[in-house]
Parts: sequence; C-alpha cells; structure tokens
Amino acid sequence: MTSEGRPGLTYRAAGVDVDAKARLLDRLGAAVTSTHSPAVALGAGAFAGAIGLPAGTGFLVATTDGVGTKALLARRWGRDAVVGADVVAHAANDLVCSGGRPLAFLDYVAMARLDAAVVATLVEAMAEACGAVGAVLLGGETAEMPDVYTGDAYDVVGTMIGVAPPDGLITGATVRPGDRIVGLASTGLHTNGYSLARRVVDQAGIDPDAPDPRLGTTAADALLQPHRCYAPAMLSLLERVRVAAIAHITGGGLPSNLARVLPEGCRGRLAGVWPRPPVFDWLQRVGGIADDEMRQTFNLGVGMALIVRRRDEATVLEHFARAALAAFPIGEVVEGPRGVDGP
Amino acid sequence: MTSEGRPGLTYRAAGVDVDAKARLLDRLGAAVTSTHSPAVALGAGAFAGAIGLPAGTGFLVATTDGVGTKALLARRWGRDAVVGADVVAHAANDLVCSGGRPLAFLDYVAMARLDAAVVATLVEAMAEACGAVGAVLLGGETAEMPDVYTGDAYDVVGTMIGVAPPDGLITGATVRPGDRIVGLASTGLHTNGYSLARRVVDQAGIDPDAPDPRLGTTAADALLQPHRCYAPAMLSLLERVRVAAIAHITGGGLPSNLARVLPEGCRGRLAGVWPRPPVFDWLQRVGGIADDEMRQTFNLGVGMALIVRRRDEATVLEHFARAALAAFPIGEVVEGPRGVDGP
Repeated sequence: MTSEGRPGLTYRAAGVDVDAKARLLDRLGAAVTSTHSPAVALGAGAFAGAIGLPAGTGFLVATTDGVGTKALLARRWGRDAVVGADVVAHAANDLVCSGGRPLAFLDYVAMARLDAAVVATLVEAMAEACGAVGAVLLGGETAEMPDVYTGDAYDVVGTMIGVAPPDGLITGATVRPGDRIVGLASTGLHTNGYSLARRVVDQAGIDPDAPDPRLGTTAADALLQPHRCYAPAMLSLLERVRVAAIAHITGGGLPSNLARVLPEGCRGRLAGVWPRPPVFDWLQRVGGIADDEMRQTFNLGVGMALIVRRRDEATVLEHFARAALAAFPIGEVVEGPRGVDGP
Repeated sequence: MTSEGRPGLTYRAAGVDVDAKARLLDRLGAAVTSTHSPAVALGAGAFAGAIGLPAGTGFLVATTDGVGTKALLARRWGRDAVVGADVVAHAANDLVCSGGRPLAFLDYVAMARLDAAVVATLVEAMAEACGAVGAVLLGGETAEMPDVYTGDAYDVVGTMIGVAPPDGLITGATVRPGDRIVGLASTGLHTNGYSLARRVVDQAGIDPDAPDPRLGTTAADALLQPHRCYAPAMLSLLERVRVAAIAHITGGGLPSNLARVLPEGCRGRLAGVWPRPPVFDWLQRVGGIADDEMRQTFNLGVGMALIVRRRDEATVLEHFARAALAAFPIGEVVEGPRGVDGP
C-alpha cells in the first residue's frame, strides 16, 4: 500500500525518514538489479514487473509462502539474512516439486516500524538466493503497519513464479508400485517446527552462542541453518531422468508430505535409514518431545524426497553424489491405500 | 510454513482444531475451485500450482502487494470481505498498468490465531474478485503466528500474475507532449491513506454506523467502499485503443503516481476538474488536514489515470461511459522536466 514510487525502483518504503529511505532504496535497488537479466522488460518503478518468457514454455508454475516463526529466532539472535535466503529456497523447492523452473520472485516484507537495516539485509539475502536459482527479483513491497505487527517482529512472504515445458509438469500421477523413494539430506529444521523449537529454547533457557558438544556447534548455528535449496541439483536431474513425484518435506514431516504426491492405490513404505542431524536429537532430549510429535513436526533429516523408477535409482543417487548433496534410498512404493508407513 | 496438506487443496491451515479445520478447508476448497478453469493443471494439494499459458504470450507480468491498514478498520467494523476483494482489485489494477491480463492469483493470510470465519470470508471474497477479472486462485497460504501479529489483526498479501503479448507491454515510453490525460473515478480511499483516516476516526470518536448527511451515508460505508477494479474496462479498451501509459493512483496521490509513468522530458499538467467523493472533504474537515497532505495521501476521486493521443481521447471517454465508469479529461502532457503540476 505504500507506493511512493522511486524512478528506477519498484521497492517502496514509507514511514522512514527521507535520508534513511534514500539510502535504503539505494541498497534495495542495487540488490534487485543485481538479479536482473536482459529478459526483464519492466521492473524498475513499474506498477507491475514484466519478464520475457523463455521459448517452449507450456505452463506457468507458482507458489507463495511465508517464513513462519523461524524469523522470530533469527530476529532475536541477530541473523536476519537467513530468513531472506530461506523464503527463496523454500519457494524454489516447492516450485521444483511441480517441475517448475524458477523465473521470477516477488517479495513482501512488513513490520510495525520499518528497520532499514533489517529490510536491506533481508532483500540482499533474497537477491543472492534468487541468483543461485536463476530467478530475477521482479518486484516487492515493504509495508509499515504499527497496529498489526508486534515489537520488532516482521513477516516475509515470497512468491516464486516459474515455467515448465508442455510435457514437463510433475504431478505424481505416474507413480506406481515398485518405484523407489530417494531422500535428500536436510541441513536441520529448514523452516518448520519453530513454534515447538522456540518453546524448547525458552523453557530450557538456552545460551544460543555457547558451543554444545551434543550439537557439535552452538544452538544458534544449529537452529538457524539455512533452508537447503534443492532446486539447482533437482533441475539438472530432471534433464537426465524422468521423475514421477517430488515432495518438499515441510510442516507435518516426511510421511504426510510424501503422501501428498502419491496417487490413489499407491503406498509409500519407508524402510531406509539416514543420518539425522544432531539438532533433532538435541531438541527431543532437551524438550522431552515424544517420537510421534517429532515425526509429525520436523523433517528429521530428509528435506526433499523423490520417487523414481527402480532402474533409475542408481543414476539418481550418483547424480546427487556428484552435486555434493547426500541422497539416501529410503523406501519404495507398494500397492495399497494412499498413505505412508514407517519408519 | 504450515503445510499439513489436504488432498485436493493447496490451502493449508495449522493450529485450528481438527473439525473447524476440516470445515474451513471445505469452504476454502469450494471458493478456490470455483475460480478454476480447464487450464489449471495443478492446484489442489500440489506444492506449486500450474496453469497452461494462453497462445501468443510474450511476457509474464506480476505484482505483489498487501492491503495495509484498511484491514484494521474492516476488522473493527466487521467487514472483512472488503479486504479480500480489495487485495485482488489492487493487484489487478497494478497489473493492467503494465498491460498485463490477469491469469492467476496467489494469496497469503496471516494472523496471531487463525479465525476460521475470518479466513473463509477473506478467501471467498478473493475468489469472487478473481472471477471478476478472469484470474484463477492458483494457490495460497494461511499462517498462524502468535508472536508476530497483534490481537485479532491480520495481514493479507496477494500476488497477481498475468500475461501480455509480445507487443503488449505498456511502459510509458511512447508518451509525448500533446497527449491527453484521462482520469477514472474512484469509489473513495480505495486502500490508501488509512493510517491518516484511522487517526481522524479515532480522534473524532466517529460512530461508524450513524448516517452522516455530509457523507450521504455512514462512516463505515464511506470509509470501507471496495477498491474499484478497473481491469475489465481497461483491458477491453486496450483492444480498441493504443494507450501510452496507465497509472494506478495509490499512496502518494495523483501527481506522484502519474509521474511514475512519464518519460524524461514530459510533464503532466492537470487542469481538469472532477467530482470528489464526499468522504475526502469529510476527512479533511473532521481531521483538519491541510490541502497538501490531502493531495499527497489520497486519490481525491481519481483512482486510475491513463495517457492517450489527443485523437483518441473522445473514444476513450465514450468507452468508459459505456462501461458505466465515470471518466474525466483531467489534463495534458507538455514539454518539460519529468513531473506533474496542479491542480
């Protein structure tokens, strides 16, 4: 709603003093234009951004999401940049689940009183993360809403828009019994389970910067690992191998997210084992959390899962190994009512 | 971040009780699918929605924005539906400024504790407004963040994605001296100036439901008029007339938003008069607001302005008259430094 346009910039920030605003807009402008390609036809100052579509585009693919309350921990511990990177990584991961190739990203940042340093840190991190997935930062909005947001908390929302060729959508419809399930390693909580994690942190009175041998690092480092972005490695795999389904393991954990991409009559059977980042055992022990709640809240080490034909499994594992991304055979598809069992 | 998927639904709501959640998801699902066309390839339950692109698409056009603090008044006075309609209308208006034709909309709704009735009201209003501009509601996210949002306030963010043919972008680059400026009537504040309007309401102790002869209606009716959506009438005009520039008059008022679409060397000279909805004089008198602040805060009766060749002006005025949308000749483009003068 703030719309004091600035020639050459779609970012608009009201309510900060004029000098601070000019400096902020300079930083945002530099971050945004650093992501731009010659395909960008309208970005700067336009009411809506525009970008040329690549040849061979059949489908527009899009997803919108926030960052949730991981932002509160990042704010408290002075690590806002991770939130900017996360909102892009999360959206890019969702996009590739449908076969979308990132093209353009739009963001929204709101807080009670805009903190120019925080906004700039967020947008710079988003721009860097956009560059890593080949998306341009096509537009954004910054809103100051004193009676809507508390204290110095902010919300960050991102929309990733991508494209897929006419035969390039991944819907899960071709999944069939006998297919193999491959899991990709997560870096930690990614952006899910932070209401529970914050409760554990608050109740246990954690010192975020004290090294903890059970974590092999500090609580701040372990809990604020960036959400891993699987998009580049997954997109290059899609050029080599036909993938039947991809699930981004977000809130609700592995079984419930994997079930979302299964067709009727197909059941996932998780049997493999994979390394669990120490932060999960640490949270479970410190917080006294039951196994079931752990499984239904956290990714527990698998941040993305894909379903491929049995004959392709070795190629898939080798592909991710070469991309330095740990991949594990974690199960198979069997006949049965739609759902996921174990482990 | 909430991602408890539901087969057949991209809307995901955590934190409400299971029965209430199922009922909410049913309402959201019905609203969302009511907007869907056969072009929708992935919506329900997918990590990212997908829609087929119309033939002849050259550019993807996109914009993201919130609703600002109009939502606080709507919340207080129990009129949440207007916020759902507004977020779509605002985004569609921004999109047509660049020549974009609405294709798909994605929303984000967040509050401290999800109120199922409020969320359903918002999404149903968004779905209806999407239908009116020909966009499908392709995806959405609902987030519950108790330590980020205050009381029962919510934020609503919308992203409109559209398409334009290879020669269909409107950039303002072809504006030249001698062109005419046409203004389109607003319904009131639209979604801008609500921080100031709320201050006036609070200081004057307004009864929102008492008829006020100066308004010709109640304060609630006058202040919560829906943001007019110009997209359908504007898109049909674009099929008849070459339009050089379009400006959506949002925060900052007419002069500053019009200046955004002028090229260097072109100056807008506003000379016409147009009817001012009574709510503006009412706010100015009740709040004792200076003329300059009024001009820099509110649209003052013109919600969208377009720039056309002199020879097309009569056609444009007649087009909007037939669309039952009041249009006024409000000025012309002259040679001079980029900017806007008067009235």
